[in-house]
Amino acid sequence: MSTNREIHLASRPQGWPTADNFRLVSTEVPTPGPGQLVVRNQFISVDPYMRGRMNDATSYVPPFALDAPLDGGAIGEVVAGEANGITVGDTVLHGLGWREYALLDARAARPVDPTVAPVSAYLGVLGMTGLTAYAGLLEVAAMKPGDTVFVSGAAGAVGSMVGQIAKLRGAGRVVGSAGSKAKVQRLAALGFDAAFDYHDGPVRDALKAAAPDGVDVYFDNVGGEHLEAAIAAMNLHGRAAICGMIAQYNADQPPAAPRNLALVIGKRLTLRGFLVGDHGNLRGQFVTEVAGWLREGKLSYDETVVDGIENAPAAFLGLMRGENLGKMLVRV
Amino acid sequence: MSTNREIHLASRPQGWPTADNFRLVSTEVPTPGPGQLVVRNQFISVDPYMRGRMNDATSYVPPFALDAPLDGGAIGEVVAGEANGITVGDTVLHGLGWREYALLDARAARPVDPTVAPVSAYLGVLGMTGLTAYAGLLEVAAMKPGDTVFVSGAAGAVGSMVGQIAKLRGAGRVVGSAGSKAKVQRLAALGFDAAFDYHDGPVRDALKAAAPDGVDVYFDNVGGEHLEAAIAAMNLHGRAAICGMIAQYNADQPPAAPRNLALVIGKRLTLRGFLVGDHGNLRGQFVTEVAGWLREGKLSYDETVVDGIENAPAAFLGLMRGENLGKMLVRV
Repeated sequence: MSTNREIHLASRPQGWPTADNFRLVSTEVPTPGPGQLVVRNQFISVDPYMRGRMNDATSYVPPFALDAPLDGGAIGEVVAGEANGITVGDTVLHGLGWREYALLDARAARPVDPTVAPVSAYLGVLGMTGLTAYAGLLEVAAMKPGDTVFVSGAAGAVGSMVGQIAKLRGAGRVVGSAGSKAKVQRLAALGFDAAFDYHDGPVRDALKAAAPDGVDVYFDNVGGEHLEAAIAAMNLHGRAAICGMIAQYNADQPPAAPRNLALVIGKRLTLRGFLVGDHGNLRGQFVTEVAGWLREGKLSYDETVVDGIENAPAAFLGLMRGENLGKMLVRV
Repeated sequence: MSTNREIHLASRPQGWPTADNFRLVSTEVPTPGPGQLVVRNQFISVDPYMRGRMNDATSYVPPFALDAPLDGGAIGEVVAGEANGITVGDTVLHGLGWREYALLDARAARPVDPTVAPVSAYLGVLGMTGLTAYAGLLEVAAMKPGDTVFVSGAAGAVGSMVGQIAKLRGAGRVVGSAGSKAKVQRLAALGFDAAFDYHDGPVRDALKAAAPDGVDVYFDNVGGEHLEAAIAAMNLHGRAAICGMIAQYNADQPPAAPRNLALVIGKRLTLRGFLVGDHGNLRGQFVTEVAGWLREGKLSYDETVVDGIENAPAAFLGLMRGENLGKMLVRV
């Protein structure tokens, strides 16, 4: 009988999470019942939103349970079970990450074609990450050709898609912020018109220099000082798609919110929070358009891959510190 | 030759304005040139947004000039001049308030019928104030029948319209906050389902008690603690129309913004600032619908009237302190 290894939440982080909050647990590889599949995961996704689920707080997704495996996006190969037309050898996308072997209801598995793209892409550019960028930019913020677009956390999985999709859809100018010189260089290579390292000084000043004619669309992955700077820079009728606020996920105290929020009145700004789950209606259009850009070589995506389920907590902690370029993945 | 009296801005307020910031100045009644009218003002409007124009800061409307008359909504009778089909004896709405006699281009005057409603109503329920409520509630916040609506500053000119229009348009529950027991009683008489005095304790607690099933639409006249409480109370896909933030107009320091702003993501909230000037397309529909409600006795409006141009600064200061019930007007 083989062994399965999985990551449990050992304790809830107070502020910044640490390795102690996680526990590697060995169990047995499960046996599928009727309608079930066992999947050997190949890649699991670690995402910023998971930090919120580590708190014991009601949120839009239920909190992770203590002393139980974490979950999240994963892709792998079916090794046992057969149901719903899915059988051994098929590659499926599902929601039981953070473990080597997943036992799941076949209805919760989505088969994908591993010959169309590397399987990891289904967790990133062709998956939830890509759709988040696509829906947030085009539907939530309603970007129009000619708009100046600013995206924070621009070298991350979502941010790098936002900037590239904006250019491909005719944005007039695309500006990104990131947390290192190397990331800023990468943004230039990805076609951003301007990029800056937010460590170099006030975001407000850097943004003003990078977008002297103001910002029409802001895609927020960071919150805090970035949101305040974006509100200051936004043009009349500007729109912000609020996707994440990673700057404050690990704060013990509620963060200072934008002190200039009253500007939304005079500038007639719209700030709109969103979750990708509400935008499934766009999936068909998204896959068609993004797959086309990938085939034509017009869209690049970065992956930062950590090996071994035992290193999944380290991958997550690295993500929180911004050590990833593009999508952070664990190969298991 | 008759005398005209007008109010000048003598100095820019630092924080709360005082009587010293204003100066009563006597001039001569002007003589109209070609295409011009002289209007003897009957009522002038003082509005919260004017506080922003007293600062020397770029905003959506230019700042008031020092040592020159203030301006703003006014209504009166033409006493000299004839142009554009407007002649002596006509009642016109225009933008040169804060003075007894206004000299204006006839194209900047809008004739109104003084037999349809008291002339003061054209500055309030049938004017910019009413349209602000109507457009903010129905277009900006897209209120739907059945929604729970919360409006802050609910006993003010805009807020009292918002609550009544919400009920008339089928809101499931309408909650208002105000600054005194008398105002709270008035809101009950106007048909609000619940109302509270925000001096009685944390807004968050009062709102939770008044809207136990949450808030779908928030109409913000106040900002600050009210906005934070509303974000906490809002249901999924809630919408806030940000009309004003009077709580912070007189603050020396940028105010604390809502510390729970990150909730906009999980709840998929939309916060949208607006100015009535962008919603002129609704004017015809607004006048028809509101005039109908007035005729049928379904809509009430309060006015707080101060007499004499020399008391216009006191009226404005009283407005800032919330001493008005409904629309604050100066009869001149």
